[in-house]
Amino acid sequence: MYEVTSQIDISDMARGAVFLGAGGGGDPYVGELFVSAQIEAGRFPRVAAPHEIPDDAFVVSIAGMGAPTILVENLISERALLELVRRTETLHNRKVDALISIEMGGVNSMFPLGLGARLGLPVIDADGMGRAFPHLEMTSFSVYGCRASPLVLLDDLGSLITIDVVDDRRTEELARTNVVAMGALLNGSFYPMSGADAKRTAVAGTITQTLEIGRAIREARHASADPVHALLAYLNSSGENQHARLLFDGKIADVSHETRDGWHWGQALVRNASGDELTIDIQNEYIVARRNGRTVTVVPDIIATLDRESAEPLTAEMLRYGQRIAVVGFSAAPIMRRAEGLAVFGPRKFKLDEDFVGVEDLVTA
Amino acid sequence: MYEVTSQIDISDMARGAVFLGAGGGGDPYVGELFVSAQIEAGRFPRVAAPHEIPDDAFVVSIAGMGAPTILVENLISERALLELVRRTETLHNRKVDALISIEMGGVNSMFPLGLGARLGLPVIDADGMGRAFPHLEMTSFSVYGCRASPLVLLDDLGSLITIDVVDDRRTEELARTNVVAMGALLNGSFYPMSGADAKRTAVAGTITQTLEIGRAIREARHASADPVHALLAYLNSSGENQHARLLFDGKIADVSHETRDGWHWGQALVRNASGDELTIDIQNEYIVARRNGRTVTVVPDIIATLDRESAEPLTAEMLRYGQRIAVVGFSAAPIMRRAEGLAVFGPRKFKLDEDFVGVEDLVTA
Repeated sequence: MYEVTSQIDISDMARGAVFLGAGGGGDPYVGELFVSAQIEAGRFPRVAAPHEIPDDAFVVSIAGMGAPTILVENLISERALLELVRRTETLHNRKVDALISIEMGGVNSMFPLGLGARLGLPVIDADGMGRAFPHLEMTSFSVYGCRASPLVLLDDLGSLITIDVVDDRRTEELARTNVVAMGALLNGSFYPMSGADAKRTAVAGTITQTLEIGRAIREARHASADPVHALLAYLNSSGENQHARLLFDGKIADVSHETRDGWHWGQALVRNASGDELTIDIQNEYIVARRNGRTVTVVPDIIATLDRESAEPLTAEMLRYGQRIAVVGFSAAPIMRRAEGLAVFGPRKFKLDEDFVGVEDLVTA
Repeated sequence: MYEVTSQIDISDMARGAVFLGAGGGGDPYVGELFVSAQIEAGRFPRVAAPHEIPDDAFVVSIAGMGAPTILVENLISERALLELVRRTETLHNRKVDALISIEMGGVNSMFPLGLGARLGLPVIDADGMGRAFPHLEMTSFSVYGCRASPLVLLDDLGSLITIDVVDDRRTEELARTNVVAMGALLNGSFYPMSGADAKRTAVAGTITQTLEIGRAIREARHASADPVHALLAYLNSSGENQHARLLFDGKIADVSHETRDGWHWGQALVRNASGDELTIDIQNEYIVARRNGRTVTVVPDIIATLDRESAEPLTAEMLRYGQRIAVVGFSAAPIMRRAEGLAVFGPRKFKLDEDFVGVEDLVTA
């Protein structure tokens, strides 16, 4: 268990969350503001290792659901979040003991930190993806037996929907329908689970990972002439199952964005001086990167776009024509790469006609 | 309080419910089967006058929600209805003391009778419309201060949605969205209220009214050469605020039906030997009848279509080209005709460019 007392740490976490967000998850800036306000008020987020949470604790995920392009236009309402927790406790007839992030990418990695600080609740150093994904059921929680529902959706006017469905894919469809009907972005509580469930099903250590990635980038800017390569060196030394590869170094030649059905679709094309091309397909997050037509990283592994000079991670919305970027492939956590997980969030679930191969096998070091 | 022990009474009630259903509400036949099965099992529906229900009783409306054309294809699942009541009691953390119909037209007038018999709960002799209407907020309950939510929607697979929204018009939109998303027809519990609320806001006496109308039609077939005129005579003598008029006597020259957005739209054209025409506009229910272009009955007053020979009431789905029918206008209950009610279910709420005028003033006796 550690407390986060420094604004620099929060800003590092937000930076790391954009990296793990794989282009999606929304700009964590509004989440960062929310956490910063808590720290200024003397309320520090407490990050607890999974083993520090009692087995019988009641744990939920609090997250925003909706199109990330709309998310950035909405400030987080502290009042609405507190009401959401209160309604969740009423539904389950018990107090929430700890929060956990549903995804460790973008704004949803910051929500629980701010809300946990506000409520004095620990936030578990873990999440359901180790990245961001576009669907509610695309979590290790769901794959290993937790259920996304009963879930609560609440809008800023206090309108409340609860959904209780056995199949998480169906839950996703119904929740998405309600999010669109209620205004394209909602806060919700998802995946009510026990402490034991969290330990068994979550991707562990991911809050600390955002902090360390964000810090590595910041420090590399001072210590190295090439922060992108310094970050790659850090990532490859950060754990035996962690593999990072530089996929491409070039300029954005084209980028298309479309918001449709409450979703963000698109493709980015990057070209270098030799005429090589990298394409990145977007379905809220980066789904697959192909170099000259050959897959170099594919879901659930993480594709990150970085400003070439500063190594600042960029969400898909931030990409602009002519921008000089580095594209990095980073291995998903082992729990996310097993067959039962790939059946839910592997390439074929994004309508790609290929099987998953890890970035370390697609690109030699 | 009276018990309904006779299958003939149930069949009379179903007939009367089609009359009050104003063309909509769905064929009560499946509901009639459900109630009949209870009576056969020795479980008799108990109909309680509003004043017999304690002020602090917990009362809910149980109803099917969705397109009536789909309703007739779905049998009522007793198991699903019992689960719906159980989930409603869990949500409100108290036992249901009595049931009330949301509408007294078509199948939703029979649901509570069967379920009340099954559970041993009284059904209040009253409802929220004294007829059928296409929208959840179009009730005297809502007009006089009750709320449609918190409501529970449950499908046959056990998928559950609850909605809790202050504005009943918004509740209708969200509930409709979920009904369509979950499969076009759902059972739900609506308008949780106290016994005192029921007495203050409901249209009273309407279960007994369906029984008496259905019985009057059946008896007129034996006693009279013209059951339609016998029914009119009965209706006009049945209460000082009740006015019935024969609007038209002719053959169906055209009838259009369309199911769109989970709704039933259409128009019926009736012509007589003199070349006079009556049109009936349909939005799930009959909304307005115009004789040679002039309005002769308009919502919330009731338009009923009857087989010309037998006076059997016909729903809009039953109308067929060439059929000989009588069209009757019948006054809505006084509580439904006040200004605050007309603002919610008067002609302008159905996009008609006219104000409400009662059938007794539109057509002289």
